[in-house]
Parts: sequence; C-alpha cells; structure tokens
Amino acid sequence: MDIATIFGLITGTCLILAAMFIEAMGGQVPLTKFWNPSSMMIVLGGTLAATAVGFRIKEVIRVFSLIKFVLQKPKYILANLVSELIGAAEVNKKGPNELEQHITNVKTPFIQDGLEFISQGIKYEDLESILNQREKSRYKREVHEAELMKTLGSVSPAFGMVGTLIGLIMMLLGMGKGGDDGSMAEKLGLSMSIALITTFYGAVLANLLFLPFAEKISSRNKENTVCGELIIEGLELIHQKKHPIVIRDMLNSYLPPMERKSSEA
Amino acid sequence: MDIATIFGLITGTCLILAAMFIEAMGGQVPLTKFWNPSSMMIVLGGTLAATAVGFRIKEVIRVFSLIKFVLQKPKYILANLVSELIGAAEVNKKGPNELEQHITNVKTPFIQDGLEFISQGIKYEDLESILNQREKSRYKREVHEAELMKTLGSVSPAFGMVGTLIGLIMMLLGMGKGGDDGSMAEKLGLSMSIALITTFYGAVLANLLFLPFAEKISSRNKENTVCGELIIEGLELIHQKKHPIVIRDMLNSYLPPMERKSSEA
Amino acid sequence: MDIATIFGLITGTCLILAAMFIEAMGGQVPLTKFWNPSSMMIVLGGTLAATAVGFRIKEVIRVFSLIKFVLQKPKYILANLVSELIGAAEVNKKGPNELEQHITNVKTPFIQDGLEFISQGIKYEDLESILNQREKSRYKREVHEAELMKTLGSVSPAFGMVGTLIGLIMMLLGMGKGGDDGSMAEKLGLSMSIALITTFYGAVLANLLFLPFAEKISSRNKENTVCGELIIEGLELIHQKKHPIVIRDMLNSYLPPMERKSSEA
Amino acid sequence: MDIATIFGLITGTCLILAAMFIEAMGGQVPLTKFWNPSSMMIVLGGTLAATAVGFRIKEVIRVFSLIKFVLQKPKYILANLVSELIGAAEVNKKGPNELEQHITNVKTPFIQDGLEFISQGIKYEDLESILNQREKSRYKREVHEAELMKTLGSVSPAFGMVGTLIGLIMMLLGMGKGGDDGSMAEKLGLSMSIALITTFYGAVLANLLFLPFAEKISSRNKENTVCGELIIEGLELIHQKKHPIVIRDMLNSYLPPMERKSSEA
Amino acid sequence: MDIATIFGLITGTCLILAAMFIEAMGGQVPLTKFWNPSSMMIVLGGTLAATAVGFRIKEVIRVFSLIKFVLQKPKYILANLVSELIGAAEVNKKGPNELEQHITNVKTPFIQDGLEFISQGIKYEDLESILNQREKSRYKREVHEAELMKTLGSVSPAFGMVGTLIGLIMMLLGMGKGGDDGSMAEKLGLSMSIALITTFYGAVLANLLFLPFAEKISSRNKENTVCGELIIEGLELIHQKKHPIVIRDMLNSYLPPMERKSSEA
Repeated sequence: MDIATIFGLITGTCLILAAMFIEAMGGQVPLTKFWNPSSMMIVLGGTLAATAVGFRIKEVIRVFSLIKFVLQKPKYILANLVSELIGAAEVNKKGPNELEQHITNVKTPFIQDGLEFISQGIKYEDLESILNQREKSRYKREVHEAELMKTLGSVSPAFGMVGTLIGLIMMLLGMGKGGDDGSMAEKLGLSMSIALITTFYGAVLANLLFLPFAEKISSRNKENTVCGELIIEGLELIHQKKHPIVIRDMLNSYLPPMERKSSEA
Repeated sequence: MDIATIFGLITGTCLILAAMFIEAMGGQVPLTKFWNPSSMMIVLGGTLAATAVGFRIKEVIRVFSLIKFVLQKPKYILANLVSELIGAAEVNKKGPNELEQHITNVKTPFIQDGLEFISQGIKYEDLESILNQREKSRYKREVHEAELMKTLGSVSPAFGMVGTLIGLIMMLLGMGKGGDDGSMAEKLGLSMSIALITTFYGAVLANLLFLPFAEKISSRNKENTVCGELIIEGLELIHQKKHPIVIRDMLNSYLPPMERKSSEA
Repeated sequence: MDIATIFGLITGTCLILAAMFIEAMGGQVPLTKFWNPSSMMIVLGGTLAATAVGFRIKEVIRVFSLIKFVLQKPKYILANLVSELIGAAEVNKKGPNELEQHITNVKTPFIQDGLEFISQGIKYEDLESILNQREKSRYKREVHEAELMKTLGSVSPAFGMVGTLIGLIMMLLGMGKGGDDGSMAEKLGLSMSIALITTFYGAVLANLLFLPFAEKISSRNKENTVCGELIIEGLELIHQKKHPIVIRDMLNSYLPPMERKSSEA
Repeated sequence: MDIATIFGLITGTCLILAAMFIEAMGGQVPLTKFWNPSSMMIVLGGTLAATAVGFRIKEVIRVFSLIKFVLQKPKYILANLVSELIGAAEVNKKGPNELEQHITNVKTPFIQDGLEFISQGIKYEDLESILNQREKSRYKREVHEAELMKTLGSVSPAFGMVGTLIGLIMMLLGMGKGGDDGSMAEKLGLSMSIALITTFYGAVLANLLFLPFAEKISSRNKENTVCGELIIEGLELIHQKKHPIVIRDMLNSYLPPMERKSSEA
Repeated sequence: MDIATIFGLITGTCLILAAMFIEAMGGQVPLTKFWNPSSMMIVLGGTLAATAVGFRIKEVIRVFSLIKFVLQKPKYILANLVSELIGAAEVNKKGPNELEQHITNVKTPFIQDGLEFISQGIKYEDLESILNQREKSRYKREVHEAELMKTLGSVSPAFGMVGTLIGLIMMLLGMGKGGDDGSMAEKLGLSMSIALITTFYGAVLANLLFLPFAEKISSRNKENTVCGELIIEGLELIHQKKHPIVIRDMLNSYLPPMERKSSEA
C-alpha cells in the first residue's frame, strides 16, 4: 500500500471537513447544508459524461482500476534491478544453458523475457528493437491514462461552473418576487449558497482527487521509464558479454550517488 | 457505432437538464426561460464565424463530417494487424507471385499498398521513404482537424462572455429607470439571467461537445499512429524476408502483454 | 480572395451587432451607447503600443500587410506541385540543356530556383543544404509573424481590463456623492457600463480578429511547410535522376489518398 | 536607439493617462487619486522580492541593464554578415597570412575569433565544436534573461491581486461601522477604489512593461540565433575553402528573397 | 548562504506587512484580524495533502530539505571547473600514475570520479556512456523536485479558493437572519473578510514562496546541466589526450566572453 496517497486523501478530506465544522460553529449553520445531491450529480456525472465522449468506454471503466493502481507500491526498485542484472551477467559468462536455468530465479518479468531472448541466441539488433518497442508501447499506454485523469481534473471545475450558472440564473429569474427586504435576502442567500456548492464540489474533486492522481500516474510512468531504460541497457550489456564490473559501473550511473553498489558487490 | 461517445453525450445532456429541472421546481420558474435564441445565435454563430476566419471554408464544412467520424468505431485493431502481417510474411516466403495473389485477401488498404510495392520489387529505401511520408501526411492532417475542434472549444466560452458583456452593459444602461425597489430588482434579475445564459451556453458547448470531441480526434490520431508504425515495421520486415517467428516477436512488442500472439500462432 | 475569412469576419460582426440590436430593443436603450471612442483608444492604442515595445517598428507596420495576406488564396496547391515536378523530371532525363529551357515554363519560383541550380550542375549536398536552409528561414519568418498576431490577441483583453479598472476606480471614487437612491443607481449603472465596454472591445478584438488571424497565419505556415518539403524531396529526386514513376510514387505520399496521381499520369 | 520600444512605451503611457484624464473630467475626480505609493510599493516591491527569491542577486541587478539592452539597435544585420563572410572567403583563397592581416578589417567579434582560429590552422572538428558551443552558451544565457522578465510579468499581476485582497479585507472588516447610508457608500467606494488601484498597477506593469520586454529579449535572441548559425556556416565553408560563389549561394538562403546578394556581388 | 533568496523573502514579507499596516492605520482595524488559523490550516494543510496524494511520502518530507537547498550557494563555479580540468589535462600528459596522485587535489566529486575512471584505463565509449547517464539521472531527479514545488505553487491558490468558497457558502446560508441593516452589513463584512483571508494566504504562499522556490530549483538545475556538460566534455578531451591549449579553447566556449581564460593561463 502506498501510504502517502491514502494519508494525503484522508488528511485533505479531514482538513476541509474541520474547516467547514469550525465555520459552521461560528455561523450556527448545520453542516448538512453542504451536502447537495443534485450538485454532486451535475459535477461528477457531467465530468464522467464529458470524459466518456472523449475516450473509449473501456477506458472510462478503467478509471476505477487506475484508482487502485495509484494506491499500490511502486513495481520496481532501481537498486534491486541492478543486483538482478549483475547476477544474470555473472551467470551468462558460464554459458547460455546456465542462463536459461537462472531465468526462473529472476523476479522481474521484463528481465525474464529479455534473458530468454538472449539464451535463445537472438541477434543484437533484434533484441534492441524488441525491448525498445515494448518500452515505447508501455510508455504511450501510461501517458494515455494520465491524460484521462487530467481530463477529469480539468473538466470537473468546468462542470462546477456550469452547475453554479444554472443556480445563479434560476436565482436571478426568481428575484424580486419575494416579500420584504429581510426574507428576500434570506432567499437569495440560500439560492446563491446552493449555486456555489457546485463550484465547491468541482474545485475539491479536481484539486484533491483527479489532478493529484494524474500527477501520481505521471510520476509512476517516469519511474517506470527509468527502470525500463536501466533494464534495456543491462540486457544489452549482458548480450555483449561485458564484464560484470563494467556492467555494475554502467548501471550505477542510474542511481543517486548514495545508493550506488560498491566495488565488492 | 462508438457507444461511449453517444452514451456520454446523452448522459451529460440529461444530467444538465435534470439539474435544471430540479432547480426550476424549487424556484417555481418555468424551464423554458433557459432557451434564448439570441444567446445561442451569438455563441454558436460567433464561434463558427471566428473559426471560419482562422481556417478554410472547406475545413469549416468538414466540422460536420468530423462529428460523424468521432462516432465511428476505430479503423484498426492492433492484434488483427499483427495477424495479417504475419500471414503475408509467410506467403512472401513462397515468392512474389504468391504474394501478389494474396493481396486481395488483405483487408487493410495501407498494408495492401505496401505489399503491392513489395511484390513489384521496390527498393528498400524507397519503400521506407514512401510509407513513412504517407504516415507523416496522415498524422499532420488529423492534427489539423483536432486543432479546429480545439479552436471551437476555446472560442465558444469567449463568445459566451462577449454575449454576457453585451447583456450586462445593456442592463447597466437601463438601471435606475425603473420604479420602486421591488420591480427594479425583478427587472435587474431578469436582464442579468439572460446575460448569464450566454455564458452558460458557451461553457456547455465547450466542455460537453467541442473539447471532448477534440480529445477524441486526438486519441484516434494517436491510435492510428501506433497502427501506422506497426504496419510500417511489419512491411519492412517482410521486405527484408525475415522469418515469420522473428516478425511475430517484433510486432508483439506493440501489444500490451496479455494480447501478445503466442508461439504457436 | 479567401472567402472563408471575409465571410467569417462579416458574419461574426453581423451576429454581434444583431444580438446587440435585439437586446437594445428590449431595454429601450439607443445602440449608439455602445460606441465609446475613449475605450477604443485605450484598447486598440494600448495593444499596438505594447506590441511596438516587444517587436520592431517595421514589424508593427507589417501588421497591415499581414491582414492583406490572410485574405489571399493559398500560394501553392499540392497536386499541381507534384505535376510540375514530374514534368521537370521527365525533361531532365533528356539533358541539362532541355531542363534549362523548361525552367521558364515552371510557375513556382522555389522550383525554378532549384531547377536552375540543378541545370548548372550543383553538387547534391550543396543543393540539399541550400534548399533546406531557405525553407527553414521562411518557416522562422512566418512563425515570427504568427507570434506578433498572437501577442496582439493576448494583449488586447489585458488592455480591455486596464480600461475597465480605470473606469471602475473612477466610479468608486465618485460614489456616494450623488443625491437620492434612484439617481445614484442610474449614475453607477452608466459609469459601470462605460467601464465594461472596454472589456467588451478587448474580447471582441481578440476573439474575432487577432486570434483567428494568428491561427490563419499559423495554418498557412504549416501548408507552406508541407509544400516546401514536397518541393525539396522532388528536386532532390530529380537531381538523383530517379525514374519519373518512382518520383510520382514518392510525391504521392504527401497527398491524401483520393488526390493521388494515377499511374497513367 | 530602437525607436519602436521608446515610441511604444511613450504612446502606451500617454494613451492610459489620456483615458484616465477623460474619465476624471467626466466624474469630477482629481487625477492625483490614481497615485497611491503604498499600492506601488506592494506591486513593484513584491514583484522584485519574489523574483529575487527565484533568481540570483546579480541577475536581479541585471534587470536594469536588460532595460538598457532592449532599447539598443540590433547587434547584427544579416546582409552585412553575408558580405563580411564572402569578403573573408575571397581573402582566405590567397593564404592564411593574408587572412590574418584581413581580420582587423572585420567588425563582428564572433567572425574575428573564428577567422583567427582558421588562420592558426585549427582542425575542422575543433572549430565546429568551439563555435557551436559558444552559440549554445549565448543562447542559454539570453533565454535565462527572457525568463527573468517573464517572471516579473507573471508575478506583478499576482502581487496586484495580493494588494487588492489586503484592501478588500480591510474594507470588509470596517464595514457597517459608518453612519448613515450616503457616507457609508462613499467610504466603501473610496476603500474599494484604493484596493483596485493595486490591481491596476499590476496589470499595467505586466502588460506595458515586463511582458513586452520579455518578448523583445526573446525576439532578439531569435535574431541572434539566426546570425550565429549564418556565421558558423560561413566560417565552416571558409575553412573548407569553398568557392566564394558557392558560399554566397549558401548564405543567401538565410535571407528573405528580396535581400539576397546578386551574382555580381 | 544565498543572499538573494533570504533578502527576497524578508523584503517581500516586510512589504506585505507594511502595506497591511498602512491600510490598517487608515481603517482603524487591528492587524491581528489578518491572522486566522483555520484559514492557514486549510491552505497549507490542503496543499500538502494534495501533494502527498500525487507524490511519495519521502518526497513530501524532502520538501523541507529542498527549502534548505535553495538557500545554499551554487555548487559549482564555471571558471573554476575550467581551471581544474586544464590542470588535470596537464598532469595527465605526464602519465596515468601522476594523474592518480593528482585526483586527491581535485575538489569536485564528479571530476574526481571521471579522472579515476581515466587513470584506470576505461574505454572511451564506456566513459562517455557512464558520465552522460549520471548527468541524465541527476537532471531527472532535479526536474522532479522542481515539479513538486510547482505542484505546491499551483495547488495552494486552489485551496485558497476552496476555503473562500466554504466561507462564502456559510455566509450566504446565514444571510437575512440578522437584525437591522447596520448590524447585518457588519456581520456580512466580517464573514466575507474571513472568507477572503484564505484566498489571500493561498496567493501569498504561491507567489512569494512556492513558485519562486520552484523557479530557483529549476535555475539551479540548468546551471548544473551546463556544469555537467562542461565537465563531461573536459573529461572526454583529457581521455583523448588533447593538448591543454586546445582544451582551454574548447572549454572557454562555455563561459561568457569576459570570463574566458586568457592564453597564458
């Protein structure tokens, strides 16, 4: 479980609720007034509808699996990948049969596939082209997912505004019909507050949920890209039968200075 | 038919109408007040006029065919293209005559053209240059279409604002002429609501129609680009007379892991 | 004459005037109130002044010739360029003297220059470098022109706001000085309406004039870039003395499928 | 002196003052009310402070020299550079000694340095690498300066808003304390006008000063880049001892058609 | 210590406080009204929570070390790096043993590592690949940090708005409940001012703290990139055993004209 995401979501929601509670105390207004199903319907429904127009049906359903995905731990840890690749390089020096037996010990599927190709004696150019293409395809798929989230994040405040406009127009159309000054102010205040709740929903959904989730998917994609590049370089060096020490020096360059593998690794 | 787009459009429109209906109930205001032909005229007309200034007349007409296009199913399915190309590669090993007879079985026009060039014995560099140029031209044409939609989407809220400004200025010019307090508030409310309806039209058109359609065209373009790259790589490998198994491994890299063709294909 | 641009400008202006007329009818306000020379002065003058600060004096004057330019027909038609280049390729097979005589029949100056270089026996690398550099320089000049228009389009709403702020501040400074409630509301309404007219001018100028013109210049630049690439590839193929049929196949890739030259051309 | 910049600054300032004067006449409000030192302090001071946080102290001081720089004439004229380079090419054909004596006649320092390297018999790759690196470093320095100006331009409206918020909050806190209706409206109007003056300052500074200056620095950078590319290509051709006519044809491609050097040059 | 950042932060804060003080004097409002813990809680807490959703927990903690980092002096000075590299080049001409002894005199860790590789007789391609990869990894890490700051800067005004919306809705819900006109205006003013304070906090945090800090990290990254390129080119030239004078000429191209090392260096 990725604690930061859960923690951020809960903290953010609590902070907003706490601020609402404090203000509601001061103004002697029940907090329940903040819940308005018709406003939520137009913001969340409209946002999903507009996204459904721009994307495919299966991509819209995928939104929910994406939410699961951003809560997961990162798939790879850079330093572990370096160890796995150096291990495979040492085995590969013994021969292709030893390498083939070693594959089952490797945990990362992408490295497994690469080692299988190498043990089957693939040509260097073919290996290079296949691995790079896979990476490129994965990258494009994940960029597309981040875009879907960004669309949700940019459309939800717009539908918040659409809802507020509907409320405002209704309020203005009903203006002047009320009786004396006091009751009219009260009526106007109520209509206006309902109108603004839609803007509020749109702003919270975008800034606490959709945009940070888009950022998360985008961050993960960048991490996966670095891992992908490291794995590809590692596999290419193994195919070239470079010495494990050279491979270690090469792959260490992907790590920040303090995480680099020392010489005796 | 692309269900997501239709579904999104209908759902979005219904949600907005429902929210308007609920609010209209509460405020005892007839829903018909939301229909204002002069506001629609300035938003839709102004948006199309501004787009006509920036693009060519035939491109503006094309807007309507674009609407048809975003409702269609995707042209290609990646996995089918891989099968077609592997099939052609196997036939090509028998000889150019067999390949020529096979072309009529191929359904994708772009692959057909490529196989025809190959069966006529085109040079590798010429094949590469022709196929890449075609793809580049298609890409540029589709980017241009997405830009036209984006222009519609960014211009329509602006014309919504222009209409609102006209209404506001009119309202302000007529201010203070009314009689007592109550009737003036009613008059102001009415004028202001009409002014805001234009903003409302601009926001709905942009966020439910134009911007999601631009996104859709842009998504389709990206899918077509991936297909184009896959077809070009496949045809180049066929020209190089690579073994079908190698071609399968190469083209599989374009697919997400679970859709890859297995060895016995 | 480019009909779309003229048509868009006239339609857009008429629509805005019509909407103003309809609203003016309803509010019994003379339409002439919408004309305010001091507002126009600050928006148009301020926009041109700010652009003059950012660009050179001769570029600011050029704005007017740019307006002429966006009304012109496109310089090149892709299909015609392909015909001209295939024609030149056929003549070139006869020899450099025939080519030199043929140059006067060619209408496009860029092709003419290129053929002259070829008939004079220029080296391939030099031809490539000269043609590409010319294209690059033309591209940069036109991008610069589109930027000037975009600057006008982004600065004019800002000066609209500056004018509105001046009006608002003046109005607020004069507030409370008036007599009874009715006349004060009238005075405020008038001041406020004048203030908003400046915003209105800025929004119309930007969205109906400057931004669509910037889009047009940018579109034209893209079309010219495609033509330039086609001409350069054509001339290079002629220099290489490729067979006209190969040249036709190559250049056809720049055209959309239905416009491609058939084999018997 | 660059007339356009001076002219634009003076015209823009005059237009704004004139509009203020006309409005002040109508509202019988003294123009001096527009001068508010505390508003200027927060906008200009806050903008410089925020820029100081983001950049280095010497870069902030450099702002003033940048203002001087945008008023200067352009450093290079493309057509003159072509002449100088063709001249140097002709001398170089006579020998390195003649070239060395010729250097003092050359006015452009970058060409001088390049010719000195050539006359000392530098290797072609070293010449290429040194010249390109110099250009790249100059480009990066100037991009950085344009960014500093853009930061000023984007931060100043933000501090205008901060100042307005302070004024608004103060006004709201003091609300309801005043006596009768008339005097309260006057007090509110005054407080609000002072609050808005800060927004006004921020908008004028950004749109008439900082953003156009950023545009100017950016324009100059682009011109310098074209000149740099032309000089580098020219010097490389001289090192290759290409014929002056070929050099003329090559460098002419950087000029717009009507400025190109004719054959007899 | 980086004086500009400290200076900018203190000056900016003082200017805002001074402007608040001047306004508070005029309106006879205590300055303490500007401090509202619940507003600060929602802006700062909400911003950090949303950032925690989008980034990892350790990256959120790192925010504080980033604040320390932007106050530090720049790590490298270009001119010193050139001297160090020329010194190493002179020693390297004597032999690898002398170079190894010289390494301890070198202060920059990146140059040290590079010289160690050279003295151990690494292959040129391996050196190139390792150094470039390290630079690329450092660049990506620092870009990621600047993005985290930018996220803070773009999210904080959004949470300022969320807080203001909560306050506004509360105010509107309580409207019309008060007694006579005077006390209601006072109540409204107070509620509204509290609502706006949240916007004020969001704007100040974004424009004086987060965005300039993001700019600073981004600036530092660009400086480090130039230094990294210079060091890599220097080390490569040393590996190629180029003459120190040539290395001086090459590396001088990274410096602005007045800082270049003269011939006798």
